[in-house]
Amino acid sequence: MAKQIAHAVMHCFLLLLLTGVAVATARGIAQGPEAVDEWFSKLGGAKKKVTKLHFYIHDSVSGRNPTAVTVARANTTSTSPTLFGLVNVADDPLTVGPEPNSTIVGRAQGIYSCADLSEIGLIMYMNFCFTAGEYKGSTLNMLGRDVELYNVDEFSIVGGTGVFRLARGLVMGVKPPKIKFILDLLPKLNEYSGE
Amino acid sequence: MAKQIAHAVMHCFLLLLLTGVAVATARGIAQGPEAVDEWFSKLGGAKKKVTKLHFYIHDSVSGRNPTAVTVARANTTSTSPTLFGLVNVADDPLTVGPEPNSTIVGRAQGIYSCADLSEIGLIMYMNFCFTAGEYKGSTLNMLGRDVELYNVDEFSIVGGTGVFRLARGLVMGVKPPKIKFILDLLPKLNEYSGE
Amino acid sequence: MAKQIAHAVMHCFLLLLLTGVAVATARGIAQGPEAVDEWFSKLGGAKKKVTKLHFYIHDSVSGRNPTAVTVARANTTSTSPTLFGLVNVADDPLTVGPEPNSTIVGRAQGIYSCADLSEIGLIMYMNFCFTAGEYKGSTLNMLGRDVELYNVDEFSIVGGTGVFRLARGLVMGVKPPKIKFILDLLPKLNEYSGE
Repeated sequence: MAKQIAHAVMHCFLLLLLTGVAVATARGIAQGPEAVDEWFSKLGGAKKKVTKLHFYIHDSVSGRNPTAVTVARANTTSTSPTLFGLVNVADDPLTVGPEPNSTIVGRAQGIYSCADLSEIGLIMYMNFCFTAGEYKGSTLNMLGRDVELYNVDEFSIVGGTGVFRLARGLVMGVKPPKIKFILDLLPKLNEYSGE
Repeated sequence: MAKQIAHAVMHCFLLLLLTGVAVATARGIAQGPEAVDEWFSKLGGAKKKVTKLHFYIHDSVSGRNPTAVTVARANTTSTSPTLFGLVNVADDPLTVGPEPNSTIVGRAQGIYSCADLSEIGLIMYMNFCFTAGEYKGSTLNMLGRDVELYNVDEFSIVGGTGVFRLARGLVMGVKPPKIKFILDLLPKLNEYSGE
Repeated sequence: MAKQIAHAVMHCFLLLLLTGVAVATARGIAQGPEAVDEWFSKLGGAKKKVTKLHFYIHDSVSGRNPTAVTVARANTTSTSPTLFGLVNVADDPLTVGPEPNSTIVGRAQGIYSCADLSEIGLIMYMNFCFTAGEYKGSTLNMLGRDVELYNVDEFSIVGGTGVFRLARGLVMGVKPPKIKFILDLLPKLNEYSGE
């Protein structure tokens, strides 16, 4: 079964709207305790600004190079129609375009779990870690809920580092209509159950 | 032993104080990328407002229909007096009144772990997902620590979606005096250990 | 092997820069629903203030009294060069000085996971729980990414309780140059694999 959907991949379009502070510093986004100290000292006079980003996330739980692996589950997960209790750890590429081989600008690293008894619904904690482009070296912290049946999910950005210090915002996750989480998650579970 | 306390349920009274932004939009809390875009564009002129909610949470780890299941533990958890390392995933009903059969307004979906070596203390990450009433379709992200011996615990609301976009606030969890987490958690562990 | 590095400990210097609100209340940091209610009612006239803290964190995964234990992992974690999928629960002491026997001011309780496919990188969720000193009884919620090779890591403070209600800020984690996470994490994994 794992073979059958070896190429099943969830690739969502993510739109981020962030409200942050524009702190002018002599050293740009210099990192380290002293730079952060300076950054905070100028916080009083800083203005809020809104930033808009968009990229694609690719979550692959099967195939030769999965980007998400199952790390825990309950005794009852394999008989749960909503995979209740399944826990995955992920390191998913973030790309500029929808194709899997599109330019990578970062990674979405985190943990998510099936935490809904009545539908496929995930509780997620992800850090978006930018590895290229203008946000290289900066991160965003995302929390939220992802529901299989929704075409659009809203998540919260609750913090960040680097250029995104003290950022807050929203992520709109838009799924291609055909994507079903259960197709992605089940084979992993089957492999797991068969150990 | 699981039978003995099959009806053991933690039902806390939760009081939420939220500080958010009141953004007037033509479409109310319309969701989707365009609606959120519009919402953010009006953020500059928005005023802060404080909202107060209260409801009850019911966490049941035993009985025929548990709402929380154990998904992971350390090798040493079963001999730890504080169950150190136990990890549960939960989908607990939120109700308007204290009775389990009270009207359900949402779910508290999340993950919590016994993360204290000297007392029963939990680290929690929960999403409050409203399914009925005026907050239907909106969510709040909660982080914090729950200690067995405290009658009142304070948690943080660090973000939200829908009508709670960019919300921040506090949750006061008030436990009935007789509730002991250890009574709730132990049978699950015993079942687990006996597998 | 566990014996060999029985004393391996990660002790980072943490520098916190917090932006919070200064709410003058008759009862100081009184806790409980009524006190919080009063606190929120005065939020409108509150001024922002910046607080700076520093302390040391000691994370020990081996030895007789580990402060962090492995609770989950993927089937592939033991063959992953970056320990991808390893999940630990921790209750680490926070001290005023760098020595392990320095005065303890609190605990860092949380969960962290190896969530990077190409280097040792952690996704972390920690609550800093102060148990002594002027912040006793207050907590801070930390999210972020810790990378083995970085000497300085930046994390987000996304909320807090007690005197830190609605706090936001940054944590600068400065690692001693010789510390390598892999030395800390590997023995645990070996013990685990050998079960």
